[in-house]
Amino acid sequence: MKLTLLRVALILLPFLVAPTGAASGPACSQAVSPEKAIRAVLDAQVAAWNRGDMDAFMTGYWKSDSTEFVGSNGVLHGWQTVLERYRKVYPDRSVRGTLTFSNIEINILCPTAALVTGHYALVREKDHPSGVFTLVFRKFHEGWRIINDHTSALGG
Amino acid sequence: MKLTLLRVALILLPFLVAPTGAASGPACSQAVSPEKAIRAVLDAQVAAWNRGDMDAFMTGYWKSDSTEFVGSNGVLHGWQTVLERYRKVYPDRSVRGTLTFSNIEINILCPTAALVTGHYALVREKDHPSGVFTLVFRKFHEGWRIINDHTSALGG
Repeated sequence: MKLTLLRVALILLPFLVAPTGAASGPACSQAVSPEKAIRAVLDAQVAAWNRGDMDAFMTGYWKSDSTEFVGSNGVLHGWQTVLERYRKVYPDRSVRGTLTFSNIEINILCPTAALVTGHYALVREKDHPSGVFTLVFRKFHEGWRIINDHTSALGG
Repeated sequence: MKLTLLRVALILLPFLVAPTGAASGPACSQAVSPEKAIRAVLDAQVAAWNRGDMDAFMTGYWKSDSTEFVGSNGVLHGWQTVLERYRKVYPDRSVRGTLTFSNIEINILCPTAALVTGHYALVREKDHPSGVFTLVFRKFHEGWRIINDHTSALGG
């Protein structure tokens, strides 16, 4: 009888442990840390911007009506609205200039959310505007995406 | 033998189910929802501001060197630095005016982190400045606190 109990307990042991393992499972199976995955999104955005590919730049944002862009014009709602703002404000290469990000700080809030702060700078023929941004990322099936971008021009 | 297996399985069943239950346990034991707790922090900030109690206003922020205030002057680091900025920019009642928050949207990212967007407005004798803010809250032992405040004046 004792042996039977022990056997059954051993058979069931993986199920006892499984829920805890399952909770941390997805993170363990990731080859890339959240920090690296987020930095890759930002790097891809900079590269896309600098080759004038606004659609690729926009893949950094969550493709949702809930995505927000916040700035001195208030709160814009929706991925499409954010794309249209970029197209309107930066219609051609001379206005887009060359983009760089710096002072990137990534704060992982929980396994599916992160806060990122950083500086942006544009090198253009006539001026060199710069500013700061606060991004909130969430992790989706397709990867880490910006759900909220608050950007301020410096010295405004 | 079949009966013994069934019995042992029934005895072990609560342990099989327990980890899932434990994961959602703390949230269930809370009397106040995260949204209500966060709104209470914001309401307390507005009340403190309007009675000129800057120390009470600052209790809404995480008392840490990591707390950040982001705006058109860049990124300020540290609770004390944020307090000093408020004292410098808003030295007396005529400058502080009467504060209101509106259009508050609370997005719970996970049980210990939330994103809040909203508008602020100051009613002062000579003008009525207003703007938008993006706050990232984290839940600490002492309650929900702002770890990052990005504020932009409107029309800047």
